[in-house]
Order: sequence, then structure tokens, then C-alpha cells
Amino acid sequence: MVQLQETVIRSATREVVIGHGRPFCLIGERINPTGRRIFQEQLRAGDLSAIERDVRAQVEGGADVLDVNMGVPLTDEAELLAKAVTMIQDLTDLPICIDSSVVEALEAGLSAYRGRALVNSITAEDERMEQILPLVKKYDAAVIALPNDEDEIPMEPEKRMELVGKIVRVATQEYGIALADIVIDPLAMPIGADTATGLATMETMRRIRDEYGLNMTCGASNVSFGMPGRHALNAAFLPMAMMSGLTSAIMDARTPHIVEAVKAADLLMNHDEWGAAWIARSRAAKAAAEAAGVG
Amino acid sequence: MVQLQETVIRSATREVVIGHGRPFCLIGERINPTGRRIFQEQLRAGDLSAIERDVRAQVEGGADVLDVNMGVPLTDEAELLAKAVTMIQDLTDLPICIDSSVVEALEAGLSAYRGRALVNSITAEDERMEQILPLVKKYDAAVIALPNDEDEIPMEPEKRMELVGKIVRVATQEYGIALADIVIDPLAMPIGADTATGLATMETMRRIRDEYGLNMTCGASNVSFGMPGRHALNAAFLPMAMMSGLTSAIMDARTPHIVEAVKAADLLMNHDEWGAAWIARSRAAKAAAEAAGVG
Repeated sequence: MVQLQETVIRSATREVVIGHGRPFCLIGERINPTGRRIFQEQLRAGDLSAIERDVRAQVEGGADVLDVNMGVPLTDEAELLAKAVTMIQDLTDLPICIDSSVVEALEAGLSAYRGRALVNSITAEDERMEQILPLVKKYDAAVIALPNDEDEIPMEPEKRMELVGKIVRVATQEYGIALADIVIDPLAMPIGADTATGLATMETMRRIRDEYGLNMTCGASNVSFGMPGRHALNAAFLPMAMMSGLTSAIMDARTPHIVEAVKAADLLMNHDEWGAAWIARSRAAKAAAEAAGVG
Repeated sequence: MVQLQETVIRSATREVVIGHGRPFCLIGERINPTGRRIFQEQLRAGDLSAIERDVRAQVEGGADVLDVNMGVPLTDEAELLAKAVTMIQDLTDLPICIDSSVVEALEAGLSAYRGRALVNSITAEDERMEQILPLVKKYDAAVIALPNDEDEIPMEPEKRMELVGKIVRVATQEYGIALADIVIDPLAMPIGADTATGLATMETMRRIRDEYGLNMTCGASNVSFGMPGRHALNAAFLPMAMMSGLTSAIMDARTPHIVEAVKAADLLMNHDEWGAAWIARSRAAKAAAEAAGVG
């Protein structure tokens, strides 16, 4: 058995550890203008006030970390991301996952951040690694890495594992990044496009845990894309993925059905001592329902 | 890799196959007077009419097989079970799981049944195997077996596997029962009594699948006994257990939250081609919600 890694990320005042023996890490995903026209217009006009509501909703929903993406076409994404990161640090003490496809934006976000960030993301593409891994090292961050490259998003677990091997080799040997600071996104693909993809993803997760001991995250809602009953699918997917080695997910913490499934799986995997968190959560839900007159 | 077994059970007109490459088998559990005072009184007075409602509810909820137990104190359980089995065969074509702790009742139920029953259950206790395995062989049935004995219900996967080994040896070598006809109940214990028990159960399931290829079932609601939020816990438990090798469960099919989790896991495990069953189920739920004026 390989050593199971623990990924430490921090805000100025709070530490979050992602690990195989720990409660699942919820990375709240909603602070992102993709597909939100009004939010994009506000950001383009320099109005960041909508971020406050999104941050509050993710924190209230139980997010442990906040993913922050400011990808708005026709804006200076670097400036916007630095502003958002600065602002969010005043709103909450949750650590931040700095999310961009633009290298300059990642650097601007990292330089505005006080703590140990998670960087979202690199792939196994040489150019992407060459550009971003030096930043990860310079700012002492952790990084999410996707096992796809210029050629393809491979569906076979064997090919994904080859790309995981490449990422690990390059990051550790060429850039001196610790195994603990590499978080693999094993690429959960939509089940509606190919119903075999779920088992392939689970096998990839098992192998990443058993062969490298790495932490993992994924965009949890991808798996249900294009299907009806998305919440129920995501709520079944996450406990299965957790059994297979997934230790965090980028997800919308505003969906109680899915957050509840994660917390139940934490209890069933013995990551919730005495069930204290589960019982407290159930009591709070009951009190809220009674207060709303439906209890 | 060992051969993965398929367990065939039948009513007079319908066949159900439990197997690792197949949709999960829901064994509806409600046709049972345990803890139901009024139902017990009715049965004691020879009134079996309440069974009809319970059968209908389980069939409508999506049960594939019906567990039938007629354990009422101070009655002739053998006579009652034979009557119930006869009656239920006129109500539905679902195969029956004949459930009793009384050997004579099991035999009476088996002799009243037209088809290939599942017998619930034996343990690794010598006396129980000696009494019941000849009936399983005589009536060409399949049997649920629990890995506990006179001494204990062991918590360690290793000890449970020893008892699984004993059951397999005795059933196949001494009574000529096929591996395919042994369905192990790996004993899902209440998580509230010991939060380590979930992972021990999952490991036992993985080992039973990987070392013997046997099918498995369990009382799905046990795991949440004594905890709040039982439906949510059961709904997370089953997809995790399915990933670990569980191929059926004895459960109340009237709980949509839990049945939905099982159907989602079937899709994610590629046991629902094209997602056809999932999509049909979602459409039916939507239509029902609209008809009820909440859609």
C-alpha cells in the first residue's frame, strides 16, 4: 500500500486538509460567471457585489473551500480575479481554489491571496505544465491536474493512468512539487453520452488511490449532464466515488440532497466520529423545517 | 478473478436473475407482521386481507421479489405461511423469498410455492444448516446465508469470511447446492452502534465478490438503525454497497428516495442500457407530480 497523501490548503486564518481518512472536502463552485449573463454584465461594469450573495450561499450550504472563477469575455480577467480574491478574503475565512484557464489570471489571483491556495488547473499538456507549475511552486500552492493532453481526453483507465504518471513525474521531478500538493481530477464524464463511463471513472479513482495515494477532486455535476433527475444521480455518484477514492468535489453546496449524500457517506466511511456531525446536521434540518412550519 | 455467479429465482410465470452484471434486485420487505400489532391480530384471527395492500404497495414501489414472513406469536406459523404464499401467488407474478426462523414454516411455504424460491435464511450454525439445507435441495431453491454462528456475530471481515467459507463448503460439498444458489447476507450492522462497521461491511462484500463471486443481499435499513435521517443514510449506503459487490437488498420499496438511489447506481454502474429505465422512471415521476398539481 502506498502512502495516502494529505493536501493542506489555507486561508490567512483557517486550514483545510484534504485526505483519504478525513471528511470529504466540498469545494463550492458557484462563484463563477460562466453561463450567467447578468452576472457577466455586472462584472464587466466593475460591479462585484453579486459575489457576496454567492459566497454566503456556498458557506451556508457547507462548502469547505470556495472555487473562484472570473472568466468573463472582453474583460481583464487577471485584474478581475485579483479583485474578487481580495474581496472574498474579507467575506469569509474559507480557503480559495483559484480557477482560470488564463495563466496571467492565475498569477494575479495567487499574488492577491494570503494563504495556501489550490490552483484549478493543469492538464498533462507540456505547455500548460511549463506555464503553471512554476507558479504553483513559487506561491507554495497545491494544484488540480486533469489527465488529458493535446491529443485527447482518454476514456480508458489505462490511458488516464499513463497521463497521471506523466503529471506526477513532471511536477515532482522537474518542479519539486510534493505528491501531497497534486490533486487529480479523474475526469467524470457525462453518463448520458456513454453509460460505461461511470465504471471507468471509478476504476481510475481506485487506481489513483492505490498506486499513488493522491487526493482527487472532480466536477461532480458533470456526470449527470443531459440526464433527467440530475440531483438524484449526483447524490448516488458521490458516495460511490468516495468509496472508490475521491476525496473532494467541486460542486454547488446549495443542493441539500447532494450535500446530505456526502455527509451520509462520510459517516458510513467512519469519517464522522460518533456520527456527531450527522446528528447535528439532522437536528438543524429538523429545527429549520419546524420553523418553516413543515416539520 | 473468480466466476461471478447468477442466482435464478422464479414464480410460476416470471424469472428474476440476481447477478453482478445486472440491475440490483429489490426484495420488498413489508409483508411481515413484526412490530405491527393490528396486522398480527388480523392474522391471528385468520384474516389475511391486509396482505393484499402490502403486496400492491411493494409491487408499485418497484420490488422485483417479495419477502414473505408470517412470524406471529401464538399462531401456527407453518399453516399461516403456506396460506400467505398461496394467496400472494394469486396477487402477483413476482417470485417470493420465503422468510422464517421456523423450519416447519419454511417447508410449508416451499411446498405451497410454484417456482424457484429464495429461502431466508440459514446461518453458519451446524444445526440450522442441517435442518434447512436439505429443504433447499429438495425444493430446488436458493438460500440466503448469514456469516454468524452459535458463538458470535463477528465484526472483523476476516472472521466473517471464515464463516462464509464454512457455509460454502457445507452447502456445496455436503448438500450438493450450487454456488449460484448461495446468497450471502454480509450483515450490515447499525452504524450508530459503531461507526467503523460500515467499512468492515464494505470490505466483507468486496471479498465475497472477489474470492467467491457470490451474490449478496442485506437488510438495507439496519445500517441506519437508531440514527436520524434514516432514508438519507440508507440512500447513500446502497450505492456504496453496490460498488462493493452487493447485488440485492431486502428493503421497503415504498421509499422513493432509496429506490431512486438504487436506480441511479444501476445507471452509473452501466446496468441500465442507454439509461432507458432511468429516463422512463424520471418521466413517470414528473407526470405523477404534474397530475398531483405540484409539477
